Amino acid sequence: MQGFGVHTSMWTMNWDRAGAERTIPAAAEYELDFIEIALLNAPAVDTTHTRRLLDLHGLRAVASLGLPEPARASKDPEAAIAHLAQAIDVAAAMGCEALTGVTFGGIGERTGLPPTEAEYDNIARALSAAADHAKGAGLQLGIEPVNRYENHLINTGAQAVWMIEKVGSDNIFVHLDTYHMNIEEKGAGNGILAAREHLKYIHLSESDRGTPGWGTCDWDEIHATLAAIGFKGGLAMESFINMPPEVAYGLAVWRPVAANFEEVMDNGLPFLKGKARQYGLI
Amino acid sequence: MQGFGVHTSMWTMNWDRAGAERTIPAAAEYELDFIEIALLNAPAVDTTHTRRLLDLHGLRAVASLGLPEPARASKDPEAAIAHLAQAIDVAAAMGCEALTGVTFGGIGERTGLPPTEAEYDNIARALSAAADHAKGAGLQLGIEPVNRYENHLINTGAQAVWMIEKVGSDNIFVHLDTYHMNIEEKGAGNGILAAREHLKYIHLSESDRGTPGWGTCDWDEIHATLAAIGFKGGLAMESFINMPPEVAYGLAVWRPVAANFEEVMDNGLPFLKGKARQYGLI
Amino acid sequence: MQGFGVHTSMWTMNWDRAGAERTIPAAAEYELDFIEIALLNAPAVDTTHTRRLLDLHGLRAVASLGLPEPARASKDPEAAIAHLAQAIDVAAAMGCEALTGVTFGGIGERTGLPPTEAEYDNIARALSAAADHAKGAGLQLGIEPVNRYENHLINTGAQAVWMIEKVGSDNIFVHLDTYHMNIEEKGAGNGILAAREHLKYIHLSESDRGTPGWGTCDWDEIHATLAAIGFKGGLAMESFINMPPEVAYGLAVWRPVAANFEEVMDNGLPFLKGKARQYGLI
Amino acid sequence: MQGFGVHTSMWTMNWDRAGAERTIPAAAEYELDFIEIALLNAPAVDTTHTRRLLDLHGLRAVASLGLPEPARASKDPEAAIAHLAQAIDVAAAMGCEALTGVTFGGIGERTGLPPTEAEYDNIARALSAAADHAKGAGLQLGIEPVNRYENHLINTGAQAVWMIEKVGSDNIFVHLDTYHMNIEEKGAGNGILAAREHLKYIHLSESDRGTPGWGTCDWDEIHATLAAIGFKGGLAMESFINMPPEVAYGLAVWRPVAANFEEVMDNGLPFLKGKARQYGLI
Repeated sequence: MQGFGVHTSMWTMNWDRAGAERTIPAAAEYELDFIEIALLNAPAVDTTHTRRLLDLHGLRAVASLGLPEPARASKDPEAAIAHLAQAIDVAAAMGCEALTGVTFGGIGERTGLPPTEAEYDNIARALSAAADHAKGAGLQLGIEPVNRYENHLINTGAQAVWMIEKVGSDNIFVHLDTYHMNIEEKGAGNGILAAREHLKYIHLSESDRGTPGWGTCDWDEIHATLAAIGFKGGLAMESFINMPPEVAYGLAVWRPVAANFEEVMDNGLPFLKGKARQYGLI
Repeated sequence: MQGFGVHTSMWTMNWDRAGAERTIPAAAEYELDFIEIALLNAPAVDTTHTRRLLDLHGLRAVASLGLPEPARASKDPEAAIAHLAQAIDVAAAMGCEALTGVTFGGIGERTGLPPTEAEYDNIARALSAAADHAKGAGLQLGIEPVNRYENHLINTGAQAVWMIEKVGSDNIFVHLDTYHMNIEEKGAGNGILAAREHLKYIHLSESDRGTPGWGTCDWDEIHATLAAIGFKGGLAMESFINMPPEVAYGLAVWRPVAANFEEVMDNGLPFLKGKARQYGLI
Repeated sequence: MQGFGVHTSMWTMNWDRAGAERTIPAAAEYELDFIEIALLNAPAVDTTHTRRLLDLHGLRAVASLGLPEPARASKDPEAAIAHLAQAIDVAAAMGCEALTGVTFGGIGERTGLPPTEAEYDNIARALSAAADHAKGAGLQLGIEPVNRYENHLINTGAQAVWMIEKVGSDNIFVHLDTYHMNIEEKGAGNGILAAREHLKYIHLSESDRGTPGWGTCDWDEIHATLAAIGFKGGLAMESFINMPPEVAYGLAVWRPVAANFEEVMDNGLPFLKGKARQYGLI
Repeated sequence: MQGFGVHTSMWTMNWDRAGAERTIPAAAEYELDFIEIALLNAPAVDTTHTRRLLDLHGLRAVASLGLPEPARASKDPEAAIAHLAQAIDVAAAMGCEALTGVTFGGIGERTGLPPTEAEYDNIARALSAAADHAKGAGLQLGIEPVNRYENHLINTGAQAVWMIEKVGSDNIFVHLDTYHMNIEEKGAGNGILAAREHLKYIHLSESDRGTPGWGTCDWDEIHATLAAIGFKGGLAMESFINMPPEVAYGLAVWRPVAANFEEVMDNGLPFLKGKARQYGLI
């Protein structure tokens, strides 16, 4: 998890053989260091095929997910543990370095009430088991705070650190996302300050999830703070311009937030890589 | 709708006699020009009592709401028309200058799908009737775009203008909110540019809905753009630190976003008033 | 003075035949609408040659200058009038639409004391005569506030408007510069707000005069405010990376503020054009 | 050099008995941790009197200066050494913790040419001797990069670090200033990133040297980056609203950049203290 990557949603949300074949060679042409594979349906992945393509194109990978409704850790930690174990195995078989994302819950999970101690205890139990399983597979396990609308449980960098300390495993890390930070943190750098040495991965996503550089995120503050804490992790551009209906609800994508693929890749990607270079992060 | 005001959620979410008595004298002490009364339960309002208190303390007022689930305009325009008509009558009886807010739908209304033409046609029909009713009562009718998670129908200033042109009434206006703009608009000034002469009212709310000046909103850009378009409408500070459960779900308030009432009123209010003065808006 | 242009310092500071031949075809390749010709030595210009090249490449032009020490308007308005008249004639002969820049004084002019009424009276007298002369030649006359170190007389948009009203000619306009505004104005939009309908031209120059987009200027606020006031004038990128010694002193250029020509033209130019397009300014 | 202080120019530029008596009790009322005493005329200081007043009011202090024309280190290192030695002795006698500021040259020193190796060698020689002298007196010695117009020698944090490494003393530190950084550094955090562990002191001064919070400085980025590098030094508010003529030239102060003392102290000071608290710096 070092260097600059892109979330595979730019090419596909369906990681089967066709999705992998459309994505990996295309991503390699953009001179990326890694891709983040959205693992919405782990059993459907041909892991050998993905691993071979990644090797062929010299790309590294991480996998990410949110927990599906029947396997939300806050309510059913055993189901979450089983779901995460399967995802970790698939990620390991593809050669991924980490499983990350909303590993503690669902995208769109909200009870309508503030989080309870019981929910957090369940989450800690699930993450602890998942971290053990990941360790056995040689993977790191990330937790990504998301905004208040996508989940009521972990919204800030400080909450993620608190959960990591509660879990106590040494292969869990904080995965921040500038889009969510723009809603939840006081100042663009604050989540980074709260996460510090726990921060190993960050989604660089614009304030409207459209083309990076064209929204309200303070990219200089973000990169300056990353440089200042000595960040050495992965920088992953994320933009959600085309979402399948089952994902669109949790993410609340109702209109195209960028004109098209090219607008994001030809403007946002060089903009973000330029900032990362300016601040010595790649 | 001129000058500087505060949303009454700072004092109460329950606009009965006790709520009005707690709020109006307290608001007057902060030297506000107006208050925005959250009209969650119009029949419960003692309109004569509120009007008398407003007169006594020299405060003007606007009323605001979101449509309750059984009266959402996209699905049941007749129910929405009836609900809005009642709210308009109550607002008029209190002496309010406008009814505004999510007058086109529910806070938290999402079908999980992009908006449809039928939904928009229903909304236009409801707003058209409500605008007529408001006109008869001497009121303006506002529509407030909210972020993608709180509603899937009108998220941007441009969409609000499009709806106003579709409705065609001359007493409908755009009501922007910096908190929602921070998620939806490309650049802090863009919603203002899109709304321009339609913009008569703006919520000044921080990126996390906490203390204004302590988050990521670009307040200079917001105020400079307001000044540049010749904005003459109402500036209303909004911060949601204490919400009753029935509202918290739609707004996704799970943790205190400010330490307390004083933090917002003693820091955010002078900050925002200072910016408004710096840019000649009050 | 509409559209997007670049200051010719990117190619040459010496506007003789060789300078024009190096600059004009090169500028045309960047698909600019106009160039700003630095008129440091008006008598040396082969105006027919420049006009022919501009026509050939379909480029429009404006000319700019600062007054040399013996012709500073604050002290010797007659000398300034003669200098400006000659520059206007040369600019007109090249086919320029305006003469602009520090037409009211020297770049580096400082008495060490606050400006006096006598200095301002002299300047107004010189500008009035120059505006008349420009009118006869069919040109507009611009005045560019510069920062406190480059001149002690007109540092802000408000001061430029005050001077224009004092002069009273109808072909004088304000020419702002984001680099100077970053030092002098309270908020990136404030000079624009002060100048409003007087603003016909703006230098887009980064906070360190290096590559636009890589410094501290708030480009969204600048463009949003321009769009909001209905700006219709010329946008001119300016970056001073190579200066001859006689100019370097006034401008205080001691180190390269960008790696090279390409860094500015291949990063700053598309960045600024993109922002101008985003805000509907070109 | 920890905590929050204010430059004494807010009260006086003349550090004699009257100046000290006007300043120290007044500064104490603002609950500052320290003051920065402008040492324009070291021999005129009654050091015992100042020390007694500082003790009485529980204030710590640092002293600062720029070298006068006859003692500029780049040209006459011996004269600079003598001048700095005297200032260090006076600072020590007052009980100051450091002598800082433009200790390497004059405010307003510019040859009109880029810096030469000989100038830097002379500066290094002077600073080395001054650091030794300071060490003997138990003081730290700071060097403050200033913008290109105030000095052509050290304009950025990176240049200051380079000079410190050239000198090699262990009691020299970088003293940054946000006003100068706003002109010289690429991004508000960059000087801080360049200086890192060498940074012991920072002037918090607005982009126009007026009221902090009312200009273009990105205060969140500045504070976030300070917090991120683990900054433990002194934060000193600086605003130059009233300058004697002999200082105004170098600083180019021609107009009041704030309405008055109260505007700065009642708005800028709480704003900056609030940001420092928000980021855990005080």
